[in-house]
Amino acid sequence: MMRFAERVQYAKASEIREILKVTEQPEMISFAGGLPAPELFPVEEMRAVFDAVLKEHGSEALQYATTEGYTPLRELVAARMAQIGIKAAADDILIIAGSQQGLDLTAKVFLDEGDTVICESPTYLAALSAFRTFLPRYVEVEMDEDGMIMEELERALEANPGAKIIYTVPDFQNPTGRTMSLGRRQKLIELANKYDVVIVEDNPYGELRFAGEKIPPVKSLDTQGRVVYQSTFSKILSPGLRVGWICAAPETLQNYVLFKQGTDLHTSTIAQYAIVRFLNTFDLEAHIENIRKVYKERRMLMIDTMKKEFPAGVKYTTPEGGLFLWVELPVGLNARDLLVKCLERNVAFVPGGSFFPNSSRENTLRLNYSNSSEEMIVEGIRRIADAMREMLK
Amino acid sequence: MMRFAERVQYAKASEIREILKVTEQPEMISFAGGLPAPELFPVEEMRAVFDAVLKEHGSEALQYATTEGYTPLRELVAARMAQIGIKAAADDILIIAGSQQGLDLTAKVFLDEGDTVICESPTYLAALSAFRTFLPRYVEVEMDEDGMIMEELERALEANPGAKIIYTVPDFQNPTGRTMSLGRRQKLIELANKYDVVIVEDNPYGELRFAGEKIPPVKSLDTQGRVVYQSTFSKILSPGLRVGWICAAPETLQNYVLFKQGTDLHTSTIAQYAIVRFLNTFDLEAHIENIRKVYKERRMLMIDTMKKEFPAGVKYTTPEGGLFLWVELPVGLNARDLLVKCLERNVAFVPGGSFFPNSSRENTLRLNYSNSSEEMIVEGIRRIADAMREMLK
Repeated sequence: MMRFAERVQYAKASEIREILKVTEQPEMISFAGGLPAPELFPVEEMRAVFDAVLKEHGSEALQYATTEGYTPLRELVAARMAQIGIKAAADDILIIAGSQQGLDLTAKVFLDEGDTVICESPTYLAALSAFRTFLPRYVEVEMDEDGMIMEELERALEANPGAKIIYTVPDFQNPTGRTMSLGRRQKLIELANKYDVVIVEDNPYGELRFAGEKIPPVKSLDTQGRVVYQSTFSKILSPGLRVGWICAAPETLQNYVLFKQGTDLHTSTIAQYAIVRFLNTFDLEAHIENIRKVYKERRMLMIDTMKKEFPAGVKYTTPEGGLFLWVELPVGLNARDLLVKCLERNVAFVPGGSFFPNSSRENTLRLNYSNSSEEMIVEGIRRIADAMREMLK
Repeated sequence: MMRFAERVQYAKASEIREILKVTEQPEMISFAGGLPAPELFPVEEMRAVFDAVLKEHGSEALQYATTEGYTPLRELVAARMAQIGIKAAADDILIIAGSQQGLDLTAKVFLDEGDTVICESPTYLAALSAFRTFLPRYVEVEMDEDGMIMEELERALEANPGAKIIYTVPDFQNPTGRTMSLGRRQKLIELANKYDVVIVEDNPYGELRFAGEKIPPVKSLDTQGRVVYQSTFSKILSPGLRVGWICAAPETLQNYVLFKQGTDLHTSTIAQYAIVRFLNTFDLEAHIENIRKVYKERRMLMIDTMKKEFPAGVKYTTPEGGLFLWVELPVGLNARDLLVKCLERNVAFVPGGSFFPNSSRENTLRLNYSNSSEEMIVEGIRRIADAMREMLK
């Protein structure tokens, strides 16, 4: 018997990952994953990009690099931050191996065992896994269509003095697709300042808005350098490159750099060179616009089909961007039971229960619409509706 | 003031990294880093490889992938393990983002706060940083030319009941260049079994033997599945790809997979595809043979020059492979003082003190020979010798 660390007993395989294994069967229609549409990847452009990088910077791109990241990439990311209202220089950016790594580093920089992490209810499943390695306590804050409810947040802050982190996905949240309103973002900053808490703003989907008005990131409202912002190229370019970034105040960022160094030395050099080359050669904005267009159509079709097909009493969110929407079954119905019936019909989703760290609202489920064709969306929603009707009998 | 985690106060920037910043000046001769020779990178081959991968598997290579790693790569790695006497199937391999990540995951899987890690004295600096995040205690075991001294190890195991890990770099150790003898490897397994300790065998340099006889890896002698073996493509192909691997017993590996998932989801998909393509298209063994030849010449030249130039009383190791050798100044002399004099002469190295987690033998230093031309080696060693003579005056 190996003697593992105590935290091993709290680690569990992501339910999504286990479901994804089932969905590898070709006949399965899967709304379970969170994959970007692969048919939109700029494959030929990336081919040109890698070729140019290896031709012109082969030795550098294959060599070790600094922990902070490749300077031209840090500069380009800082310029992108400026476009969404975040003042940042290259020195304020740390390049990381996808935004999941940002969560691991956040835990390393901020969390001692037993520290309180405040999060939305529900929240991003893999953030819970990343933080859980450092054995925090979770406190959930109720959401409505405008995101985390600030009265509930203040109550949570009152009840948990010394809470370390408020973790939020303010734009097109995973799993609900909800977006935090501007008024609540302002209130969030005010409360974080008052209660001396760090805000971790996880924003992988912010650029994928296809409806409604842009809302400035929480970080752009930060007056005391207490927002750690993280994002990624995974949803706007390619997740297979594993490149994201952290933007934070200097002392905080320096600590992220320190732990990044011990964690994996640095992010793939060639992937960083490739992204720089892509940004300098091709039009990322036009590419993102195309992604928005396709995801908008898919989301509209999914909602339209749900309207037509789902039984009365089933509710769902209407996201203005991102990859996911959230379904609530009538209370008392269990989405895990629904999943069993759906798998029999070759359609999959993720039951919502595991997105709640403490509570568990088993009548909820997450649907992904970015990775299915229009035919699959219509057919898949019909099959889920059929399974729902069977359950409601 | 931000409230960081307690571990932040124990984290410190790698001294090497700080020295490397100084050595970026072009006139500097640096024996400080641990970089492979970039002029040996198979740049044109990698260009062909990335082109073929993007042409034939573009969407897959740019998409998310499983945490365990790309199956064809796991198979190829398992086959390489077999060549050095380690029985492993693809399922026994986890692909990781360079071997540094293996150390982070090892800490997550095994270390509770205050747990004892037994290591060589001196040991790999960045392993200390990776583990330190989880606040272990370090116990150092003396080495000689045959590696860790087993009588000392047994004393350490007696004195520290419940020790969790023995961390070793048995082949061409960083920083000393020393290799553990076969007899000691057998004794190491015996002691680990007796005292119920996990062995972490970190073997990034094992394939870079250019003199002496091959010695089987510790993992190949493992009778109870208690050796976690890790290695990397960084020193035999390219560190900029950030691809390494873990080989461990099933239950242990499953825990590594769990924490890898929370840490960064998975290793770069395109980098994994590229390595598979390289291995299936080009002759990695011939490439490694070429690296060995060049490093052998550089090491021989460095030793020959030290013989001629270094003052009497200065000792050094004679590695049979790898990238580093280790110098001991007469006791009482401080390598940090020597470094100051050397930087004035535009030559750099890493003082040995920080390779000792508890003790600190300040009369030691590490020299890298893989990343300097023959001219630079001769000139750099002459300058160090000149600085030594000035100190000895």
